[in-house]
Amino acid sequence: MKLYDYEQAPNPRRVRMFMAEKGIEMPVEQVDLGTRAQLNDYFVAINPFVAVPALETDDGEILTESTAICHYLEGLQPEPNLLGTTPLEKGQIMMWDRRIELEFMAGIAEAFRNSNPNFVSRSVIGTQNFEQIPDLVDRGIARAHAGFEMLNDRLGEAEYIAGNRFTIADITAFIACGFARWIRLGPADYHANTQRWLDTISARPSASA
Amino acid sequence: MKLYDYEQAPNPRRVRMFMAEKGIEMPVEQVDLGTRAQLNDYFVAINPFVAVPALETDDGEILTESTAICHYLEGLQPEPNLLGTTPLEKGQIMMWDRRIELEFMAGIAEAFRNSNPNFVSRSVIGTQNFEQIPDLVDRGIARAHAGFEMLNDRLGEAEYIAGNRFTIADITAFIACGFARWIRLGPADYHANTQRWLDTISARPSASA
Repeated sequence: MKLYDYEQAPNPRRVRMFMAEKGIEMPVEQVDLGTRAQLNDYFVAINPFVAVPALETDDGEILTESTAICHYLEGLQPEPNLLGTTPLEKGQIMMWDRRIELEFMAGIAEAFRNSNPNFVSRSVIGTQNFEQIPDLVDRGIARAHAGFEMLNDRLGEAEYIAGNRFTIADITAFIACGFARWIRLGPADYHANTQRWLDTISARPSASA
Repeated sequence: MKLYDYEQAPNPRRVRMFMAEKGIEMPVEQVDLGTRAQLNDYFVAINPFVAVPALETDDGEILTESTAICHYLEGLQPEPNLLGTTPLEKGQIMMWDRRIELEFMAGIAEAFRNSNPNFVSRSVIGTQNFEQIPDLVDRGIARAHAGFEMLNDRLGEAEYIAGNRFTIADITAFIACGFARWIRLGPADYHANTQRWLDTISARPSASA
């Protein structure tokens, strides 16, 4: 297998952290989003949707979309389980993972992509060019703030995002917290639950993946 | 089990069509998004993220997020399989389902929620109110048009969205095509692959779910 990666970007980091938790190693090729290398013919032939991560299987199949890649890897190497064992647990973990994506990570991305000078005309991932929309910066920041509240509330109910153990939802939330620093946001001083959880997750070897 | 539903909305329809394919039946309660009933205390207590669908399990657990609910139901009743059997097929189906969501359905939703008078101050699903952003209407329409091209291209490569059989990715794409009519968009006359596929999917009993 081989991973097409960009070290700084949040989505490939989700897959790298997932791999580290499972002890999966594979060759990694950097696709330099900083020079828009994902739009070069070479990479478009690999992933026409021009995004990383992309995983090449041993049979030469290409898988894209972070969550899909993680489901593939969990199927290949079920332990340690990160996606649930019973139908209910699988559903709950996926529910929390998507809530973190939609209620937290999406707002951060919205604020970031519509304000950063490197993303002029690239406000949406994909082959089409779209200009930045200034109104989305404020909206994204407001959504990100709400996401930090949601995260702290949830971590007051449960030790980890999806319940009483570490799962893919913690990976997504942890990487989203790192991504939030790109727009200079972080948990508030009173987000004690989030601080406790961040300390726990940061101490895992996979946190540096 | 019990499904909290809103008959007209696209996401609950994804779950109903998934259930119909599996022959799963359960009591359904309508949450009238037309009168913003999802924001009433009664429903906020059920789903604090104020969206349908939500599924109540026999043990009283609440699951939300269409895809998470479908994964739960697939676990309870594996046949007919709609989410893949091998790790690779699971990954491919999830990849295509997410591509349809992100490259097609998201654009339609963007155009719809930012233009429809019933969604003034409700341009984003969730507890927070956000004003409509007129620039997102044009951007959403452009993304939806690109989504129709993508769909037709894909259906030139494969009989169904994720490959040679019907899966959840076809459900998502079929419901997205119905949703597109809300912004008066549909496949172009030259989208012969999409027309062929739409005829096939429309003939399934689950299409009226």
